[in-house]
Amino acid sequence: MMLLDRRKELVVTTHNFNAGPSVLPSEVLLRIQSELLNYHGTGISILESSHRSKEYELINQRVIERLKRVLSLPDTYKIGLLQGGASHQFAMLPLNTLTTSNCGAYVLTGVWAEKAYEEASRIGAAHVAASSKVHRYNQLPAISEWQIPANAAYVHITSNNTIYGTQWPELPRTEHALVVDMSSDIASRRISYANAKMIYAGAQKNLGPAGVTVVAIAEDFYQQMHDEAPQILRYSTHINNQSLFNTPPTFSVYVLDLVLEWIETQGIDTIAQNNLLKSSAIYSTIDASGGFYRGHSTHEARSHMNITFRIADESLEPLFLQEAQHHNMIGLAGHRSVGGLRASLYNALPYASAKALADLMREFQRKHG
Amino acid sequence: MMLLDRRKELVVTTHNFNAGPSVLPSEVLLRIQSELLNYHGTGISILESSHRSKEYELINQRVIERLKRVLSLPDTYKIGLLQGGASHQFAMLPLNTLTTSNCGAYVLTGVWAEKAYEEASRIGAAHVAASSKVHRYNQLPAISEWQIPANAAYVHITSNNTIYGTQWPELPRTEHALVVDMSSDIASRRISYANAKMIYAGAQKNLGPAGVTVVAIAEDFYQQMHDEAPQILRYSTHINNQSLFNTPPTFSVYVLDLVLEWIETQGIDTIAQNNLLKSSAIYSTIDASGGFYRGHSTHEARSHMNITFRIADESLEPLFLQEAQHHNMIGLAGHRSVGGLRASLYNALPYASAKALADLMREFQRKHG
Repeated sequence: MMLLDRRKELVVTTHNFNAGPSVLPSEVLLRIQSELLNYHGTGISILESSHRSKEYELINQRVIERLKRVLSLPDTYKIGLLQGGASHQFAMLPLNTLTTSNCGAYVLTGVWAEKAYEEASRIGAAHVAASSKVHRYNQLPAISEWQIPANAAYVHITSNNTIYGTQWPELPRTEHALVVDMSSDIASRRISYANAKMIYAGAQKNLGPAGVTVVAIAEDFYQQMHDEAPQILRYSTHINNQSLFNTPPTFSVYVLDLVLEWIETQGIDTIAQNNLLKSSAIYSTIDASGGFYRGHSTHEARSHMNITFRIADESLEPLFLQEAQHHNMIGLAGHRSVGGLRASLYNALPYASAKALADLMREFQRKHG
Repeated sequence: MMLLDRRKELVVTTHNFNAGPSVLPSEVLLRIQSELLNYHGTGISILESSHRSKEYELINQRVIERLKRVLSLPDTYKIGLLQGGASHQFAMLPLNTLTTSNCGAYVLTGVWAEKAYEEASRIGAAHVAASSKVHRYNQLPAISEWQIPANAAYVHITSNNTIYGTQWPELPRTEHALVVDMSSDIASRRISYANAKMIYAGAQKNLGPAGVTVVAIAEDFYQQMHDEAPQILRYSTHINNQSLFNTPPTFSVYVLDLVLEWIETQGIDTIAQNNLLKSSAIYSTIDASGGFYRGHSTHEARSHMNITFRIADESLEPLFLQEAQHHNMIGLAGHRSVGGLRASLYNALPYASAKALADLMREFQRKHG
C-alpha cells in the first residue's frame, strides 16, 4: 500500500511481496474506500447492490470489454467471470472437453500444473506430454520434446510458475489446442494468443482480489465442448448468461473492473516495462552476488513475476526474513513446499518496492557475506 | 444504507429491499471503510492480504466458530466456506452423496428447489417427494404427504422461498436426513437443527456479501459421503483443510465475519424479533387493505424474509414502483419470473425501512384505492 504524504507525494508504507492475494494499486484502494458507502449516487454500497441492478450490469459488461482490450483478445473470444479459482478450472476444463475417445495432455512445470493434471486424471484420460520435475522444475521442457497423443483435446500449460519462479518467454506454438493457466502472469505483458484456445486466471495476483476467475475461450474450442457436466459446471451456462446465471461475486468483479481500468490507463506496455525493471533489479543483484544468492530457475526460464531464490548459506534465511520485516517488507518466505525466499512482483507492486528489496539484499550481503 | 446525521443520529438514506445481494448493516460498512487501507496495523488492505497470513487465518477460524454459535450448531458439525453460491451446492450435494444404489428426494416449493432437483437429476437418481407447484407455490406440501423412497440418501428442502414468499415455520421432522438450502433465511431466527444433517447458504442475503457460501454438515452425514467427485468438488477437500485448500474469497469471508459479529452483538433473538416486527408491518397492511393488496402466500406459509404481493389492479404496479423510487425505496419489483411486487426484509434491513414501506402502501391505497 502506498499513501500520500503531507506534500501529497506517494510514499510506500509496506512493501507487499505476497504471492497472492497480493498488492493492489493504491489508486484502486482509495477509490474503493471513497465510494464504499454510496456507489455512484445510488445511496447504497456496491456490496449491497443487486447483480440485476443497472449499475452492476454495467460493471459486468465493462469488465468483459476491458479484458478483451487489455489482453488484446479477438472479439470472438468468449469471456466468463467465474468462481472457485484456478483449482476449479482444473476440473471444469476436463469436465467440458474430455470424452471416452480423447484425452488432455499436460506439460508439468510445477505444483499447479501437477494439480491440474491430477484433477483431469480423475475425470477422464490425462497424459503427461512433458515434465521438468527431474530438474526440480528449474526449467521448462523444450517444445521439441513434448509428446502429445493424436487424440489430445488440448495441451495444458502453466504460463508462469509461482513456486519455482519460471515463466514461458512466450506462449509455445503447437499443432494442438493450447490451454493456459495464466493465474500468475495474466496482463503482465503484451503476448500473442494466436495459438491459445483457452486461458484462465484467478484474479488475485495481477488483476484484483480473490473470489473471481477470468476465463477466455476461442470460439472454435468453445463450440467443441460438450454439455455432459452438471449445469453449473458448464462453461456454456455462464457464457450464455453473460456470467449472470447465478449471483456472481459482485464486489470482486467491481474491484477487477477498477484494476483493469488502472492497467488501461497506463497501457499494457508500460506495465510490462515496469515489471521488467522490477525483476531486473532483483536478478541483477542475485547475479552480481558471486553466489551469495542463488536463483532457482535457469536464466532462460526466469519469471518476471515471482523470483524464487536462496541464500547459499541457507541458515541465514530466517535472519534475512527478519531484516526484511524490519524494513516493512512482507510475503518474502518461499512457498511452504520448497522453502527459501520468494519475491512476487505483480503489476501493482511499485518499482520502489523492488528497488528497496535489491538494496536490502546488497546490504545484507555486505553484513553477512 | 444509514448514515449519521449532524446530530450523530442514524438516518436512512435509501431503503434497500433487494432480494440479494442486499442490505448490509451500516456499522459493518463504516468499519470496512475505516480499515480498508490498513488492516489492523499491517500496513496493507485486507484485500491485499495473503490467505496464509496470520491475520486472515484468524478471520477464517473466527467465522467458523461464530457460525456455530450464531446457528446454535453442535460442535461436531463440519463447517465449509466455499464459492459458487447455492447453485454450486445443487451439484456438490449429489456429487458427494449419490451412488448407483440410492437417490436424492426433493420437496419442490419454488424455482430454486426445482433447480436443485434438476441438477441432481443430471448427476444421479433424483425423486420428487412432494410439490406445491399446482398451487403456484403459494403453500408448502404437508409433511404427511411427502413420498420418500426407502433408498433416499437425503430429503432436500428450501427453508425460505424468495420468489414466492413462503417459509417453513420450522424445519420439518422426517426419518430421513434433511438437507436444507437456507440461503434466504439463515440466521434470521432461532431454529432447531435437530433433524438437519446439512445446511447451506449463499451469504449475500442474511450473512454478508456475494462470493462466499456457508456449508454445515453433521458428522454422521459427512462420514457417509464418498470421494468419487473431482477433488475440488468434494466437501472433504475443503473441510479437511479448514476451507484453505485453495485461495478462498478472502474479502467476502472478512465481511461475513463482521456481519456475524453484528448478529452476535445483538443476539439472534433480537434479530428474530426485529424481523417479525418488519414482516408484521407489511402483512398487517396487506391484510387491512380489503383486497387492494394481495399476498401471494397462504397465511400459514408466509415468509418473514420476502413478502411477495400484488396490487389487485395490476396495472397500478408500475406506478407503485415509481412512487417507491421517489421515496428512496429500491428493489421492490417482483422476480422477473413472476412479476408483481416483493419486499425482502433481511436481517440488516432497519425496521424504519419496513415502516416506511407500510406507510407508502397505505398512502398509495388512499390515493388510488
